[in-house]
Amino acid sequence: MTFKYKNVYINETGTVVGPYEKEGPLVNYFDKSYNDFYFNKKTFEQAESKLIEDSVDIVLDKLDKTRFDIDLFISGDLLNQLMSSNYAASTLGIPYFGIYNACASSVEGLILASNMVEAGQIKNCICSVSSHNNTAEKQFRYPVEYGGPKPKTTTFTTTGSASAYLSYNKEGIKVESATIGVVKDLGIKDAYQMGAVMAPAAAYTIYKHLKDTKREVSYYDLILTGDLGSIGKKILTEYMQTEYNIELKNYDDTATMIYDLENQDVYSGGSGPACAPLVTYGYIFSLMKKKKLKRVLLVATGSLHSVSSVNQKLTIPSIAHAISLEVVE
Amino acid sequence: MTFKYKNVYINETGTVVGPYEKEGPLVNYFDKSYNDFYFNKKTFEQAESKLIEDSVDIVLDKLDKTRFDIDLFISGDLLNQLMSSNYAASTLGIPYFGIYNACASSVEGLILASNMVEAGQIKNCICSVSSHNNTAEKQFRYPVEYGGPKPKTTTFTTTGSASAYLSYNKEGIKVESATIGVVKDLGIKDAYQMGAVMAPAAAYTIYKHLKDTKREVSYYDLILTGDLGSIGKKILTEYMQTEYNIELKNYDDTATMIYDLENQDVYSGGSGPACAPLVTYGYIFSLMKKKKLKRVLLVATGSLHSVSSVNQKLTIPSIAHAISLEVVE
Repeated sequence: MTFKYKNVYINETGTVVGPYEKEGPLVNYFDKSYNDFYFNKKTFEQAESKLIEDSVDIVLDKLDKTRFDIDLFISGDLLNQLMSSNYAASTLGIPYFGIYNACASSVEGLILASNMVEAGQIKNCICSVSSHNNTAEKQFRYPVEYGGPKPKTTTFTTTGSASAYLSYNKEGIKVESATIGVVKDLGIKDAYQMGAVMAPAAAYTIYKHLKDTKREVSYYDLILTGDLGSIGKKILTEYMQTEYNIELKNYDDTATMIYDLENQDVYSGGSGPACAPLVTYGYIFSLMKKKKLKRVLLVATGSLHSVSSVNQKLTIPSIAHAISLEVVE
Repeated sequence: MTFKYKNVYINETGTVVGPYEKEGPLVNYFDKSYNDFYFNKKTFEQAESKLIEDSVDIVLDKLDKTRFDIDLFISGDLLNQLMSSNYAASTLGIPYFGIYNACASSVEGLILASNMVEAGQIKNCICSVSSHNNTAEKQFRYPVEYGGPKPKTTTFTTTGSASAYLSYNKEGIKVESATIGVVKDLGIKDAYQMGAVMAPAAAYTIYKHLKDTKREVSYYDLILTGDLGSIGKKILTEYMQTEYNIELKNYDDTATMIYDLENQDVYSGGSGPACAPLVTYGYIFSLMKKKKLKRVLLVATGSLHSVSSVNQKLTIPSIAHAISLEVVE
C-alpha cells in the first residue's frame, strides 16, 4: 500500500539521547543528551517517559508553540502496553493514538500523520517514539545474567526519543510518499538474530515501494534501514539481489551509524524504535538541509516478538514501513 | 479532535466469542462461538490469534472477498507487543498497522481507517481487536491465586474477536463522525477499579464530541460506552452531571450487556478490547438494521496501565475515543 503526498512536511524535530549515544559519533546532531539512565526519575520506565516529554518540549520550543496548538499526538515504544508513551500522553494532554509495530513504529506514526495532514483532517501532528536500553533489557531479557556474553548478532537498544512535527507548512523536509509493509516470517526463532529476522520485511517493502512508485534504486540518494545492524545489513543486500534482483546502492543502516562499532561495546549496533528517527532527524536531516542528500528513503524495521512468543518457541514475524523524504527546494 | 465523514461505511463485520460469551444473553448475535479456550491451538496466546483470523475470515466470506482484496489491516489487543495481532497479520499478509489504546483500540482503529477511506487513500480496511480471558489473567494478574476472591469492581476480560470491514460503499452502517480522546488521570492506582479509572476519560470525550458537533445528548438514540462495568457506569452518569452539567439519557455500557450479570460470575461485567465491538457489531447493529436505533455514539474506553506501572504504584491514565454510527437510509 503506497501513498503519495503533496502537502506534508516535517517542519521540526526534537532528539534526546542517553550516555551511550552521547559517546557515539553523532553526538553533535542531537538536541539534548543525558549522562545517566534515570534523568531524575525513580525508575527506568518513568525515565523513558521523560525522554518523550523532553523531545516533544524541544519541538514545541523550536516552533514557539504550546501543547494546546497540537491537534494530535501519535506515539509508540517497546514497553508492555506502551507504558512510556501513555504517561507522556497523560502529561501532554494532546489527543492521543498509541501505535505499535516494534522498531517500525516511527515510520508507522509518520505515515498515519502524513495521511491525515494530506487530507486536511488535522492541521498538525507530533509523532514520537522512544526506547531505553535498561527498560528493554529488563523487559525482554530478564534475568540478564551478570557477565553473560551475548552473540555478535545482538543489537543494543538505543536510549532516546525522537519527535517530529508534521504540517502542511512548506518548511523543513517534505514527506513525498510512503509504503505500508506486510508481515514477513521466514522461520527464525532466535531473538538475538533480529537483523536476519527483519531483513526480508525490509527487502519486500523496498521492492514494493520501488514497484508502486515505478522507481529505480538510483532515484534515492540514500536508502536507510533502521535497524538491521552490521550483520543484518549484509543479509539485506544479498537478499535483495537474490529475491528481487535489485542491487542496493547508496544504502546504509542507522544501527551502524549511531554508535562507533569499533570502539563501543554494542555488538551489531543500535536498535529500538528511537534509533532510526534519531539518526534521521539528527544527522540525515542536517545533510539534507545542506543539500548533500536530496532524496532519502527511510525504511523502519520491526521485529514483532514478545517474551511470550520467544518462550513458546514461535517463529518471529517482522514488518517494515518506508517513507520517502525530500529536501524542499 | 473531531472528524466528520461523508463516505465511510462499515459494510460488514465478523464476531467470534468463547464459552462465557456463548452462555451470555447475546449469543444469537455472534457469528461464531467456541466451547473451550484453546480452539485447537497449543497456547492461549495462539488461540487468541486464531480468534482474530476467524473474525477476519468471517468478514471476507460474507463479502465474498479474499485477503488480497484488502488494502489495510489495523489490529490491536492487550498482549505484550500485540502478540495476537502480529501473528494474525502474519497469517493474513495484508499491509498492517498495529495499534494500542487498551480497550479503546477498537474505536482507535475505526477512526484511523475512516480517515483514510474518507480521503480516498485506501479503498477499504479491516479493523480487528481481540481479547482472551486467560491470556489477560495470565499476563496482568499472574500469579492468579487459586480460589482468591476479587473485588466486585473487577471486570471479566471477554474472550473474542471483532472485525469490521470499512469502505466507501454505501452499505451497512454509516460512520458519521468521530472524536479522538485525551488521556485523563484522576489519581486512581487500583487496577481492580477500571470503571472508575476510565469514567473521566469517557466523560471528557462525550462532552468534547457533543461540543465539537454542537449536539445535545438527545441527538443520539444510544450512547454506548465500553467497558465501564456496572459500577463505572454509575460513576460516569454522576460525573457527567457534576463535571459537565450533562444528563446522560439513552445510555448503556457494553460491559453490562455481554454477560448476564445476575447469573454469570463476572463481577462488574465484561472488559477487553473485544467486548465493546462484539456487542456493537453483533447486537447493536442488528437493532440499527431494523431501524430500532438510528444514531449511536460508541465510546470505547481504555485503561492505560501495565504490570510495571501497577508494581511501581503509579496512577492509572485512561483514554476514550468516540465514533458516531448511523443507519443508512
